[in-house]
Amino acid sequence: MGFTHSMASYDIPRGYSAAGIYCGIKKVKKDLALIVSDTPATAAGVFTQNKVCAAPVVLCKENIAASGGIRAIIVNSGNANACTGNEGMLNARLMARAIAHEMHCDEREVLVSSTGVIGQQLPIKKIESAASDIVDLLATTSFTDAADAILTTDTFPKICSEKFSIGGGDVTIWGMAKGSGMIAPNMATMLGFLCTDARIGQSALQKMLSEITERTFNSITVDGDTSTNDMVLLLANGAASGTEITEQSDGFAVFSKHLETVCRGLAQMIVRDGEGASKFIEIRVKGADSNGDARIAAKAIANSNLVKTAIYGEDANWGRIAAAVGYSGIDFNPEAMEIWIGSVQVLKKGYHIDFDEAEAKKVLSEKDITIDVQLNGGAGEAAFWTCDLTKEYVNINASYRS
Amino acid sequence: MGFTHSMASYDIPRGYSAAGIYCGIKKVKKDLALIVSDTPATAAGVFTQNKVCAAPVVLCKENIAASGGIRAIIVNSGNANACTGNEGMLNARLMARAIAHEMHCDEREVLVSSTGVIGQQLPIKKIESAASDIVDLLATTSFTDAADAILTTDTFPKICSEKFSIGGGDVTIWGMAKGSGMIAPNMATMLGFLCTDARIGQSALQKMLSEITERTFNSITVDGDTSTNDMVLLLANGAASGTEITEQSDGFAVFSKHLETVCRGLAQMIVRDGEGASKFIEIRVKGADSNGDARIAAKAIANSNLVKTAIYGEDANWGRIAAAVGYSGIDFNPEAMEIWIGSVQVLKKGYHIDFDEAEAKKVLSEKDITIDVQLNGGAGEAAFWTCDLTKEYVNINASYRS
Repeated sequence: MGFTHSMASYDIPRGYSAAGIYCGIKKVKKDLALIVSDTPATAAGVFTQNKVCAAPVVLCKENIAASGGIRAIIVNSGNANACTGNEGMLNARLMARAIAHEMHCDEREVLVSSTGVIGQQLPIKKIESAASDIVDLLATTSFTDAADAILTTDTFPKICSEKFSIGGGDVTIWGMAKGSGMIAPNMATMLGFLCTDARIGQSALQKMLSEITERTFNSITVDGDTSTNDMVLLLANGAASGTEITEQSDGFAVFSKHLETVCRGLAQMIVRDGEGASKFIEIRVKGADSNGDARIAAKAIANSNLVKTAIYGEDANWGRIAAAVGYSGIDFNPEAMEIWIGSVQVLKKGYHIDFDEAEAKKVLSEKDITIDVQLNGGAGEAAFWTCDLTKEYVNINASYRS
Repeated sequence: MGFTHSMASYDIPRGYSAAGIYCGIKKVKKDLALIVSDTPATAAGVFTQNKVCAAPVVLCKENIAASGGIRAIIVNSGNANACTGNEGMLNARLMARAIAHEMHCDEREVLVSSTGVIGQQLPIKKIESAASDIVDLLATTSFTDAADAILTTDTFPKICSEKFSIGGGDVTIWGMAKGSGMIAPNMATMLGFLCTDARIGQSALQKMLSEITERTFNSITVDGDTSTNDMVLLLANGAASGTEITEQSDGFAVFSKHLETVCRGLAQMIVRDGEGASKFIEIRVKGADSNGDARIAAKAIANSNLVKTAIYGEDANWGRIAAAVGYSGIDFNPEAMEIWIGSVQVLKKGYHIDFDEAEAKKVLSEKDITIDVQLNGGAGEAAFWTCDLTKEYVNINASYRS
């Protein structure tokens, strides 16, 4: 797996090009990214459940439903185009139209995404002026520039790729993301953009992406706030020229596995780059009545400010973990619950507590922390990823809007 | 209304006495409180919904269901008797028995409550040794001492009372509480203890308490974590010798109104004393499809770390408020939403934004902050109270277990 923070190597699927430039929305950093498929690609998307959803979310849903294929994804950072009413919706359309005009394609073949400040109108003229430049730049394609241009308060670009064999041919999945949580001062958005050269039909592609998102991008939390702009888009252009992957073909499971690896890798990078985060926390719940129950419990732990501050303080405060499972709403037998922090079992069955505080302290001094909860009920299990809650998080979110 | 932080005056209902002493569970502060009714009182209770509930919660439910009346409530602080298994259950019973023995009453006439560290066995011998002393102290009754003895990380005792006329006679409701949220280092619990000299049947008393708790103690949040020990107990001993208040009598509404005033007063004191809190925040949602929907939206805003850090930073970040309503799960028209911070309207219908940042900053510099959200849909409304999320909260919860 290519797992890279910046310029390290990764694999790119055939038939795509990308670019990232500065167009003047942010103060100095790159703020406009473009990914283009040489041919119309099958597209799938998952979007924020927030009722207050941004204009680009509405437009993407329309274009994926209407179009026979997608040629481009244009993304700006620095402005979320959320809570912007009719003018915002028009601006999202103008953004697609500007790129379509340069690429000589239909504007419904262009997906649009925005991230940044909520409640300010998009400076659409700046994007329209830059459309020609960014399309020209595709000639010297740079996926790294694109990954840089979608960031807001992120401290590093998030890129992940997988290259693997399927039905005798090579297939590549490449993805980029930004985070982290609803994140910074009035900034919105977890965004993920994926492209592959596999040949897959729309319903199979959507099914895969929806299921995998649940276990990856939807299994992370920084602050429990769901943004107005969240979206993950996946393009498949078939340039690998293998046989089509369908829900019935063997390739479906193989492709799904690798897609999940890319999505999980990106999701975990978002958590690692969580605002003010000093530790990466993996929470694994087993022995629940169902996977759904395990997920509810894992999410409750991941969203508990008390658990997250305890981890920040390197305190083996298992009572807060037990309490979070208790109020999560799932049915389980508290007397059968066991809890581990790293390799140290901090709670045994029947509320038997007998562990070495020094050993627990040592485990908690690491940067990567694992919390395992065994409910000893059914076969349900789930994992969730989060970061600690630090004074720096409060600093970042209290101090300013940009 | 008697609204007091420490030694200020308050009204006490007839036929009750109280005491608070140090028995050795904590390091130095008072840690054992007792409230006694001269005659068996009708009792009502509301308890934590946490599956991991403490032994005293189980015992209180048993005794309220079984008993013909309640004579005493014994409360220790410094140890939650939670996650303590069979030994914990036995200790809760021994605690009731020790007081019953000194008072020459049935042990099922004693309610037990504990707050403090989770997962350590109660030092029951210390409580048993102190039983005689605390019962003797009732002769020089002190409700203030009792209110002091139930505190853990609280910075001030929380007492509230109401004296009013009902059917020609005087009735008094007195209450004490501790907070604040699930609170401090492995500490658990929101506790509230109320007593009145009104004469009320058990089902009417329980109905009132359950409904009012929903709008008061259950409408506050500090960190969104539900404790293992939460309980609110209400005793009514009829010493005011008026006619019985029933669900059908005029007195029901009058008594309910004053009970709500006491419960709301105590609930708000808990929030004001929230860990690390620098501001008190009242959230009012109106124009929702139902009161239930309004409550869900208000709670989502109250639990948003991003909203709470923005208020701490005195930043009129209305986008975070709008986003919290958006992800709360209720149905509403985002275009019709209006938001005020204090007297400043920060969002008008149709996402029209036009307010004076300096004016907003001034409102936000106050210690008490009001957030009003008007959804312009139905007639549903609700209020929720919370505090800001500060660096001090992270400090308190990261640094130590006691």
